[in-house]
Amino acid sequence: MSLFYKVNIFLVQLPAPKRGEIVRQIGDALREKLQHLGRLVSLEMGKILAEGIGEVQEVIDMCDYAVGLSRQLNGSIVPSERPDHMMFEVWNPLGVVGVITAFNFPCAVLGWNACIALVCGNCVVWKGAPTTPLVTIAVTKLIAEVLEKNNLPSAIFTSFCGGAEIGEAIAKDTRIPLVSFTGSSKVGSKVQKFVNERFGKCLLELSGNNALIVMDDANIGLAVRSILFAAVGTAGQRCTTCRRLYLHESIYQSVLDQLVGLYKQVKIGDPLEKGTLVGPVHTQASRENFEKGISTIKSQGGKILTGGSVIESDGNFVQPTIVEISSDASVVKEELFGPVLYVMKIKTLEEAIELNNSVPQGLSSSVFTSKPETIFKWIGPHGSDCGIVNVNIPTNGAEIGGAFGGEKATGGGREAGSDSWKQYMRRSTCTINYGSELPLAQGINFG
Amino acid sequence: MSLFYKVNIFLVQLPAPKRGEIVRQIGDALREKLQHLGRLVSLEMGKILAEGIGEVQEVIDMCDYAVGLSRQLNGSIVPSERPDHMMFEVWNPLGVVGVITAFNFPCAVLGWNACIALVCGNCVVWKGAPTTPLVTIAVTKLIAEVLEKNNLPSAIFTSFCGGAEIGEAIAKDTRIPLVSFTGSSKVGSKVQKFVNERFGKCLLELSGNNALIVMDDANIGLAVRSILFAAVGTAGQRCTTCRRLYLHESIYQSVLDQLVGLYKQVKIGDPLEKGTLVGPVHTQASRENFEKGISTIKSQGGKILTGGSVIESDGNFVQPTIVEISSDASVVKEELFGPVLYVMKIKTLEEAIELNNSVPQGLSSSVFTSKPETIFKWIGPHGSDCGIVNVNIPTNGAEIGGAFGGEKATGGGREAGSDSWKQYMRRSTCTINYGSELPLAQGINFG
Amino acid sequence: MSLFYKVNIFLVQLPAPKRGEIVRQIGDALREKLQHLGRLVSLEMGKILAEGIGEVQEVIDMCDYAVGLSRQLNGSIVPSERPDHMMFEVWNPLGVVGVITAFNFPCAVLGWNACIALVCGNCVVWKGAPTTPLVTIAVTKLIAEVLEKNNLPSAIFTSFCGGAEIGEAIAKDTRIPLVSFTGSSKVGSKVQKFVNERFGKCLLELSGNNALIVMDDANIGLAVRSILFAAVGTAGQRCTTCRRLYLHESIYQSVLDQLVGLYKQVKIGDPLEKGTLVGPVHTQASRENFEKGISTIKSQGGKILTGGSVIESDGNFVQPTIVEISSDASVVKEELFGPVLYVMKIKTLEEAIELNNSVPQGLSSSVFTSKPETIFKWIGPHGSDCGIVNVNIPTNGAEIGGAFGGEKATGGGREAGSDSWKQYMRRSTCTINYGSELPLAQGINFG
Amino acid sequence: MSLFYKVNIFLVQLPAPKRGEIVRQIGDALREKLQHLGRLVSLEMGKILAEGIGEVQEVIDMCDYAVGLSRQLNGSIVPSERPDHMMFEVWNPLGVVGVITAFNFPCAVLGWNACIALVCGNCVVWKGAPTTPLVTIAVTKLIAEVLEKNNLPSAIFTSFCGGAEIGEAIAKDTRIPLVSFTGSSKVGSKVQKFVNERFGKCLLELSGNNALIVMDDANIGLAVRSILFAAVGTAGQRCTTCRRLYLHESIYQSVLDQLVGLYKQVKIGDPLEKGTLVGPVHTQASRENFEKGISTIKSQGGKILTGGSVIESDGNFVQPTIVEISSDASVVKEELFGPVLYVMKIKTLEEAIELNNSVPQGLSSSVFTSKPETIFKWIGPHGSDCGIVNVNIPTNGAEIGGAFGGEKATGGGREAGSDSWKQYMRRSTCTINYGSELPLAQGINFG
Repeated sequence: MSLFYKVNIFLVQLPAPKRGEIVRQIGDALREKLQHLGRLVSLEMGKILAEGIGEVQEVIDMCDYAVGLSRQLNGSIVPSERPDHMMFEVWNPLGVVGVITAFNFPCAVLGWNACIALVCGNCVVWKGAPTTPLVTIAVTKLIAEVLEKNNLPSAIFTSFCGGAEIGEAIAKDTRIPLVSFTGSSKVGSKVQKFVNERFGKCLLELSGNNALIVMDDANIGLAVRSILFAAVGTAGQRCTTCRRLYLHESIYQSVLDQLVGLYKQVKIGDPLEKGTLVGPVHTQASRENFEKGISTIKSQGGKILTGGSVIESDGNFVQPTIVEISSDASVVKEELFGPVLYVMKIKTLEEAIELNNSVPQGLSSSVFTSKPETIFKWIGPHGSDCGIVNVNIPTNGAEIGGAFGGEKATGGGREAGSDSWKQYMRRSTCTINYGSELPLAQGINFG
Repeated sequence: MSLFYKVNIFLVQLPAPKRGEIVRQIGDALREKLQHLGRLVSLEMGKILAEGIGEVQEVIDMCDYAVGLSRQLNGSIVPSERPDHMMFEVWNPLGVVGVITAFNFPCAVLGWNACIALVCGNCVVWKGAPTTPLVTIAVTKLIAEVLEKNNLPSAIFTSFCGGAEIGEAIAKDTRIPLVSFTGSSKVGSKVQKFVNERFGKCLLELSGNNALIVMDDANIGLAVRSILFAAVGTAGQRCTTCRRLYLHESIYQSVLDQLVGLYKQVKIGDPLEKGTLVGPVHTQASRENFEKGISTIKSQGGKILTGGSVIESDGNFVQPTIVEISSDASVVKEELFGPVLYVMKIKTLEEAIELNNSVPQGLSSSVFTSKPETIFKWIGPHGSDCGIVNVNIPTNGAEIGGAFGGEKATGGGREAGSDSWKQYMRRSTCTINYGSELPLAQGINFG
Repeated sequence: MSLFYKVNIFLVQLPAPKRGEIVRQIGDALREKLQHLGRLVSLEMGKILAEGIGEVQEVIDMCDYAVGLSRQLNGSIVPSERPDHMMFEVWNPLGVVGVITAFNFPCAVLGWNACIALVCGNCVVWKGAPTTPLVTIAVTKLIAEVLEKNNLPSAIFTSFCGGAEIGEAIAKDTRIPLVSFTGSSKVGSKVQKFVNERFGKCLLELSGNNALIVMDDANIGLAVRSILFAAVGTAGQRCTTCRRLYLHESIYQSVLDQLVGLYKQVKIGDPLEKGTLVGPVHTQASRENFEKGISTIKSQGGKILTGGSVIESDGNFVQPTIVEISSDASVVKEELFGPVLYVMKIKTLEEAIELNNSVPQGLSSSVFTSKPETIFKWIGPHGSDCGIVNVNIPTNGAEIGGAFGGEKATGGGREAGSDSWKQYMRRSTCTINYGSELPLAQGINFG
Repeated sequence: MSLFYKVNIFLVQLPAPKRGEIVRQIGDALREKLQHLGRLVSLEMGKILAEGIGEVQEVIDMCDYAVGLSRQLNGSIVPSERPDHMMFEVWNPLGVVGVITAFNFPCAVLGWNACIALVCGNCVVWKGAPTTPLVTIAVTKLIAEVLEKNNLPSAIFTSFCGGAEIGEAIAKDTRIPLVSFTGSSKVGSKVQKFVNERFGKCLLELSGNNALIVMDDANIGLAVRSILFAAVGTAGQRCTTCRRLYLHESIYQSVLDQLVGLYKQVKIGDPLEKGTLVGPVHTQASRENFEKGISTIKSQGGKILTGGSVIESDGNFVQPTIVEISSDASVVKEELFGPVLYVMKIKTLEEAIELNNSVPQGLSSSVFTSKPETIFKWIGPHGSDCGIVNVNIPTNGAEIGGAFGGEKATGGGREAGSDSWKQYMRRSTCTINYGSELPLAQGINFG
């Protein structure tokens, strides 16, 4: 009997609604420290304060949501075809969930996973990003305090500040039935291989390469503001950052002109300072990656309309960049993790959808339109193939009530709302014969 | 645009309830040929006629079920936290589903997959077992006729009679977003690796190693009949065949004596002949595998209580076998695909559950008891870790209304009822802003 | 123990999926007689043949749907806040369902009710309209044959051809826990009073007074064709017939002109004859009612734009009629059961919605628009208050997958799809303590 | 436009998750005053302090639950049978909900209703019991403060301290689409009549007459403790109080002896004092009603085994009473609202179930057994006909995650968990045609 199992018993012995009460208290503990934690996120990750606070608020929202969920982790009673038989679908905890998160959302992604994992009855083993240890430690301490106040072992929620070797250890550990990983498609693919080899389960949130389409019948003002937020927010380091912009030819130049104008006014600087819209990219490596990306872009024929350079200063600041480029350029199919937006021209919705779907990734996507027909085609079988399919809002800004995640190289996992909780549990189809006969399914007679 | 895509358009253009009507007609076509097809299954696979007919009946039941489902592939409307926004969860077809099935259920497993895949709007590419081509061809022809009668291209449902090279081609084909594979954990693991490398999805139904527990308070008569069916039915070649029997020490000898007595009376022979309970194993290779297994069992200290030999005759007949063995023997952790039952003694429910859960596989399991406490523990968080968790019925005999499949090395897929259909579709979280403001989630202000 | 109860035992002893199989056979029996029954409906009720056949097809569709439902009458397993407790929500049959239907859909409404009632495990006591006895008898015989073929007492499905005295007897019979009534609000209200006095349940489908709104941004061609079908189809004798037309002032005259033109071309005559669009009204009383209505309309200032008279001939033929009238006229708030359409002018969506909602009835409603904002406002909290809220389709034409029914004086019942089946069952919240302690909810200690 | 409507706009303009945040704050406000409010409930109603606090805790639990629910008031997207059509099931607020509660749960029942009504977007008009004005005022003030803190009109939640005339005014008010009433079947029936006459909706929680069955195979210790709590708790003034006890003949005398022994030790007195198990009945009228009841019981042949008298003292104290009586006595079919338990002998489960179901009321019921067969029969189609069907726990003690309410003369309403929220909303089936064709359902061609 593993140590994990022994710790998990404490949690499983609590009925789900009691686990919900623990998560409610975690939410209250975070609520009390909202401003402080938000600043810490901003300071350590580099995103602007409003986003730092917004990220913590999202964890709090998840806690509130999970409290309600703790009374709704419902199984089913299914009509049996056999007399004196009951058929149930029962959901039980997995035991332990490994959670590996990335630097760009140092606590929100943990929150999505941990809130649900805990109400489902699972211990959590968390590896935060190696570059955001303070957030990892702060969140862990808050949770530990709540657990202890409730006479529960704080080992129910364990965390690590460390690098790839710890991630690999989690991926390979047979005691961890589920590994939830957020990061690049490349690393995610390796994690998946390790986990599958030991017949574990993965929940993957991998690369995005998110397109935004503006049709000729769109509300242009709404579209322009959305593009700005989607492309330069968090210095282009959201998994849902808009990286590809498809503009209908009839409004192409006009939208582009407005965008370039706005880009030039964006205030770049200290993320904690009021008025700043764009902070630094996360690390020096990110900055170098940006520079390398710009050079590749140029070599593939991309034309820099604005931005395109790093900013010489103390921090890792880079310029929000708009690139006019052919949709055939191979760089357009990749995720460059910074504030670089590729702009391309389209003639029809069909063409736009085909281009939207033409990349390996399948996270988020957005269309701006005022036609019902376009809306319903876009969300239908021949529309966007992404996990997030928006209309008249940016590619980002998911609400916790919906399922968050993407298709194809984005990994297929779903977090937060809807039935995402099912991934954190195991399902049993149970048939109970309470009579004294032995009828077989499909009316088979035997012996 | 791939050929698959072009064919798929015919299906997707049909609204789901119209696809349901196609599947209803397939059900009627099978119903008309129930006896013939049942005989063919029996002849080609080797299972007894009642089981052959039962297998076809299961496909018919699936058709009926899928018709209803075609009006219930429901998405959700989720309350948005933003004014003038609608949030939807929409389900769309994947396009094409690859289905690779095994010899032991040459048509039922196809039925589980194809009925749901079709109403969900997917084309099906089926590879049947290389040793059951007649069933593959017969079923394919029936379906093709229905498609053609409805002016649909029969390419909507394509099948192959072939071996591993075709399976590998399907697994590697980027045009097939989902591959549903039924077979051994070893091969399944390879399929999964191929599919994941191209960021496709798998639905795996792999090895089982199913235990049946008889507690001291059980209805012994019910238990004995169930064990017989579970262990020797289909000559031990069901994925849900009972392979491990845990008997409470107080009833150990008595149950064993009754079982050995029954085993000796089991009629082995022509599966099409009335009264036969056990037909041949499927191929000469199966027969050799049985012999090899018995020899390994002996080398690990297993004591043959009855059976243990192949039967010298024209067909591939082997004796249903009971083995008394230590639960530590490594052979007990593996799936020997034939009518071999390992018997072990237990003292408590806790011990029995720990042994039940101690193997890599997690498909089916059963307890016989008359205590509510035992029932609810068995199906609860510290109970059986299998996908199928039965009480007072054999390890087999799943009904289509429930989800069929197992955990751990069994692969985690779920077929037939419950929300299994979701695996055959892709999910989008859609947020539609129909107002003219741009509120951001989590109350973020930007710019 | 009542006779009903004794008959019901036969049905309840069949597991739900077996009851589904009975309903499947009923569907097949109807399918075989589709043309004949369709003609009979047309002959006896007076609707045109296409509609007669469509009505029978709807019953067949319901049968297919109910078959799938028979494996999905799912209860829930709800997480309990107490250790060693299971909480279930279980659905059980009511026993007997009384179904009282109206002349205008002599078999579809029975089908909605009976298919679901039967798979839920209820006997059915049906009173058809006194003026459509042939359809009642034909349908009853078909169902009886299926029941008998399955060795079930045909008393499971009983029917009456009779009038109000039988309806009253059903409403007052304490052995009938649920009475499903379709008819006028006036009679429905009486039925409800009788049933409630004995603490039975009602499912009411009462009067409609359905409005169709055409906005200035609508597809006018689509709107005009829809209005024609909605207002004159079935000679205006559908519960979902469009009776009120609100036209935006900017397209008012143009739509009206087109409509009046079309009305003049409508072929009135023998409903069984090809090309006929409008048959007779159902009875001489209906014809007189039409005449009386027209006279009231005139007295309240209504201006007849086309039609307005009965047709002198053998049958009960009346002219499809368009009336220009003030929305303040009291006659607009009532349901005149014939092909009379009130036309009124509106300036804004808000005004149109307020008028739509200003009548006592709340069955169906429709808006024609090409603006997403209008669509989502129309279906939202400040939109139409009806049970059926359509966009760019007529007020009628419900699909069986959705729930059919209306609010306010329409009675609040829901039939056909969605979770309508719950009305045909009783719900129990079951908590099972399988441990040996006695923890109380809300953490109360007692004694 | 009514005043209600104008106030309601404030609530409806808040998206549901924001309404959830209001309810979360209400929960926190109550949490802060838990002890005080619990004492007030105890003081004013007369229940013991543990129950008073438990009752307030239940409201807090409901708040937490409703917060989660505010993101899960999900509609559905249903597959349409027509191309280019979307079918939705949408849920919208009703506007205003009238809530009429009884003295015995002066705040819990309000909590069940108000939490759900508010997150669903409805204003609440509450009439508390005329004899518990302090609790009504205290709760109202707490809620008003929260509303005001959030800049919402406190008129969103309005309350009255008053009698039948206010209840009647609510029942007859056409601006209140739903009236939730808790009280006697007699008054409830009148309320229903008033509400139905104006085509409003009712949610009724009326009389209970709850039976507890002890089978010969039961855990007797558990049963006896449960009976004591169920029958004398809250001085027999819960709607779920156990009023009828059916003991298997083989354990009849033994259980009865233990019960009588326990009844004699029950401490009656000041409900706020530690150790008290039974406080006074609510009013002098309750006390007189008890006396009258005892006299009727005696006149019908009931034999008082213990208790049977009022206690001469300052408060309205009465003795917990056990009565041996024939199940034919008419008094057994009625709800005597005090601590009087009728005991009867049964021989079989079938007999016990028939007796359980033989009264007009259908609220709660309980069986004590250790046989799975008995459990599943009890909760099945031929088992208890009540809304609450327990096993091995008392008739009371419902958890908020399940639906609370009963059948037959208990009124059929359901409050708290499961899908009870649907009663607080109106449902629309919406079909949207976003194409340019006009296909009709059931394949009808028209014109």
